[in-house]
Amino acid sequence: MSVGERGRVGDRADLPCGAPPRYSLNTSSHRPRTAEYPRCGRIDAVSSNLDPEVARRLGRNEAGLVPAVVQEHGTGQVLMLAWMDDEALHRTLTTGRATYWSRSRNRYWVKGETSGHAQHVKSVALDCDGDTLLITVEQTGAACHTGNHTCFFTPLEVAG
Amino acid sequence: MSVGERGRVGDRADLPCGAPPRYSLNTSSHRPRTAEYPRCGRIDAVSSNLDPEVARRLGRNEAGLVPAVVQEHGTGQVLMLAWMDDEALHRTLTTGRATYWSRSRNRYWVKGETSGHAQHVKSVALDCDGDTLLITVEQTGAACHTGNHTCFFTPLEVAG
Repeated sequence: MSVGERGRVGDRADLPCGAPPRYSLNTSSHRPRTAEYPRCGRIDAVSSNLDPEVARRLGRNEAGLVPAVVQEHGTGQVLMLAWMDDEALHRTLTTGRATYWSRSRNRYWVKGETSGHAQHVKSVALDCDGDTLLITVEQTGAACHTGNHTCFFTPLEVAG
Repeated sequence: MSVGERGRVGDRADLPCGAPPRYSLNTSSHRPRTAEYPRCGRIDAVSSNLDPEVARRLGRNEAGLVPAVVQEHGTGQVLMLAWMDDEALHRTLTTGRATYWSRSRNRYWVKGETSGHAQHVKSVALDCDGDTLLITVEQTGAACHTGNHTCFFTPLEVAG
């Protein structure tokens, strides 16, 4: 995993020591730096296939991820929030299928690959400081694994 | 800061050692546990004013925060994403003014307190696993500090 291996698909699942991200981490100043992990020592940055002009604008968290708000095209209903690394964003932008990084399953997740509840991507936008994505999708079936159309089906009581 | 001090307002800004959260952290199994920080040692959980029935359902990140998607009531436009701890959520639910935890300024932030671009809360919902909030607001003026109505004004190119 050296810098010389730019262009490899950044598959996070095969790291020998279990460190989660393999991309250079952005600090709040958005300068890329090489990740260091106690168990692995220094890991050189590995590029994803994401357009470098897009990649340089992202404000990733410490795990190398950016949250993606998912909104339904047409109805405007907010369906869910999920996480993307650079490679998941690349696939979302280029395949037409919303693709996320599953933190629980530790792998890439094409929404609907198992359930059939696919999300076809209509638009992707970045926020003002590059640390949140907004995607609009055509949702087949329900977005939520519970069977609800949206994940946000639990209202909290607002005073007044 | 002991468990016996339940009911105190959880003001995060006055921690002696600079550790950011003062609330018990939820793991993915949502069991509260006491936070430990290298500089502070063990910090007992301190309650915010949030309804305990709501608090027990939250899936907080390692900093004790939950992301809140902010959507405009009526138009359905997604305006921004910001972060809340338990106390910020409590104030959002009870004062009618959207209140966040500002990670950059390390303090509570009532949206619009300086700019006048206030957000009056219409609804708050929790997602299926308790780790994301969706709030709808009536937005006065622009949501974004850049002057744009929404923060999501930078489209990325989607293939096909």
